[in-house]
Amino acid sequence: MIDRLFAVIMAGGIGSRLWPRSRCTAPKQFLDLLSSQTMLQQTVDRIEPLIALARILVVAGRDYEPGVRDQLPGFPASNFLVEPEPRGTAPCIGLAAVALRQRDPEATMAVFPADHRIADAAGFRRAIAAASEIAQEGYLVTLGITPDHAHTGYGYIQRGSSLGAVEGLEVFQVRRFAEKPDSATAQEFVESGEYFWNAGIFVWRVDAILEEIKRLLPGLHEQLLAVARAWDRPGFDQALATAWQQVPRTTIDFGVMEQAEKVAVVPVDIGWNDVGDWATLSALLPADEAGNIVRGAGHSILLNSAGTYAYTSAGRLVAAIGLEDMIVVDTPDAVLICAKDQAQSVRQVVERLRSGGLEGYL
Amino acid sequence: MIDRLFAVIMAGGIGSRLWPRSRCTAPKQFLDLLSSQTMLQQTVDRIEPLIALARILVVAGRDYEPGVRDQLPGFPASNFLVEPEPRGTAPCIGLAAVALRQRDPEATMAVFPADHRIADAAGFRRAIAAASEIAQEGYLVTLGITPDHAHTGYGYIQRGSSLGAVEGLEVFQVRRFAEKPDSATAQEFVESGEYFWNAGIFVWRVDAILEEIKRLLPGLHEQLLAVARAWDRPGFDQALATAWQQVPRTTIDFGVMEQAEKVAVVPVDIGWNDVGDWATLSALLPADEAGNIVRGAGHSILLNSAGTYAYTSAGRLVAAIGLEDMIVVDTPDAVLICAKDQAQSVRQVVERLRSGGLEGYL
Repeated sequence: MIDRLFAVIMAGGIGSRLWPRSRCTAPKQFLDLLSSQTMLQQTVDRIEPLIALARILVVAGRDYEPGVRDQLPGFPASNFLVEPEPRGTAPCIGLAAVALRQRDPEATMAVFPADHRIADAAGFRRAIAAASEIAQEGYLVTLGITPDHAHTGYGYIQRGSSLGAVEGLEVFQVRRFAEKPDSATAQEFVESGEYFWNAGIFVWRVDAILEEIKRLLPGLHEQLLAVARAWDRPGFDQALATAWQQVPRTTIDFGVMEQAEKVAVVPVDIGWNDVGDWATLSALLPADEAGNIVRGAGHSILLNSAGTYAYTSAGRLVAAIGLEDMIVVDTPDAVLICAKDQAQSVRQVVERLRSGGLEGYL
Repeated sequence: MIDRLFAVIMAGGIGSRLWPRSRCTAPKQFLDLLSSQTMLQQTVDRIEPLIALARILVVAGRDYEPGVRDQLPGFPASNFLVEPEPRGTAPCIGLAAVALRQRDPEATMAVFPADHRIADAAGFRRAIAAASEIAQEGYLVTLGITPDHAHTGYGYIQRGSSLGAVEGLEVFQVRRFAEKPDSATAQEFVESGEYFWNAGIFVWRVDAILEEIKRLLPGLHEQLLAVARAWDRPGFDQALATAWQQVPRTTIDFGVMEQAEKVAVVPVDIGWNDVGDWATLSALLPADEAGNIVRGAGHSILLNSAGTYAYTSAGRLVAAIGLEDMIVVDTPDAVLICAKDQAQSVRQVVERLRSGGLEGYL
């Protein structure tokens, strides 16, 4: 079965909360945020022992193709799928499913974001192997991250009855998906022991996901069929572009998973982190005695500062005096200075740049 | 008498507490910190109604000469005096005194820093006129700034007995000069009503100051004589450089004023400010409702921030989120982020740059 298992890495995101390092031309997944490897390289390295590079697909906009090729030596050109425009995860996953059905009608696909961190790579692969086994029974399987605190920024998955153990991991039916909760609800979720974070990692048979897309998102399915008919033929790009004009904008969670019939969850505790903003990122890095973290190829001088993350691009210098729990990210054309507890608001800066005619800084 | 009054602007400072705008190549006095005019231009504009440009001398290092010429159209080249190296204010003032004695043995000289702000220019000129009158009696005259709070960063001047009123201003003998006091002492000084800030503004006859230099700093006087002998002759530059190797490093306050015999003070309240650091500077500028000040030719976006000064160079962008009472100064190669109450520590950054092989940022 494992040789019919394919990986689909969704690499089309823009990572706006990690501006000003994350840019249109080099978004989060292409950055070396946590190590000398980029997030995409880490993602591929984590998957490869289970799924060979030849069976790993990357879906993203055309602009990202050179970045993918640069960062993944040996990556087959035909494994890059162009998403003409971002339309949410449902069309993106539907496109990958169609592509895989062309290769192998009985393929199983595992879907991964390109820009998350997972500390326990072996545990992660074991969970994917277990999930792909359950997927053979027609289940749409999702990994559920055991929460370690009442995070309000993630969706949650409530488990239902047990489906037994696979590869040493207990697997459950899913009772329901819950949107990002308020703080009290998140607390209840975590205390119940029945809820897990939805990390956007899915495993299913290609025929199973396409069947559910057909039932729940018939408009999308129709366009995917049009794309499938044009596959490997002259005029494919045009057919894809035309179809993409008409696909509904929706996520796989909202459009499919929440209403799908056979959904399972594999709860895992694998050191998962979405590296969603600068504060989250800085919490993953080793700090000095004062809690400061200095990164980047430039120079940083921190005086009388604590709990502060400073990144500086080559050739530039950051001098910080008296900072407490701050983020400083200095790039060749822009600098962000942000209180750690307001790291989510970086997105507002990006919106202001877009609406204010300052797209050159995006 | 006024037509024998000359101005000497000391423009050799490096303004290190205003790094990273203030640089070796363009220090504080050459920057448009408070208006579209530079500090030097404001200084000259303030003086000119009283002393014509032809009688204004500027003393600074050779490197600053182009900046002075650029910023002061019509400034006579011969009015620029080269200070071979910074040796404190005593040698600098001595050099200017020698230069003026060549022009007019009975000249009176008024000495000004190039980089201070004075809100009441008319009041300032009235005080200089009064001081130059008293100077004719052989006094070394200093302007004393009426303190509006117990500042610990300035030297103080204690007044003695009254010398009567001149131009409507009461003038006093000086009892003593006091070094920068501690907080309690500063408080006593201010409450006494007898103490004034030493702003480094002096007026005296050239013969009087040279006489006191001869008495109190004979080593300096000897070198000044050597310089005077070489004046307007071939080899002057070499003679000056040689003399400068041997002049003692000292300030006019410590080396002369504190021990001089006839010293007077003209107390004034003229909106004086030394613009000594970024916090002081930002307090002089109009702020928006949140207390923020945005300057520079670049772009600044401040979200949820208050009491914050942001300067950005052309082409660059500063994005600040959640800052309280901070200074952000962003230049083409370096950015400073500093808590306002630690603005004095910018000097430490400059020292670190110097000792750490990062002189390129100075």
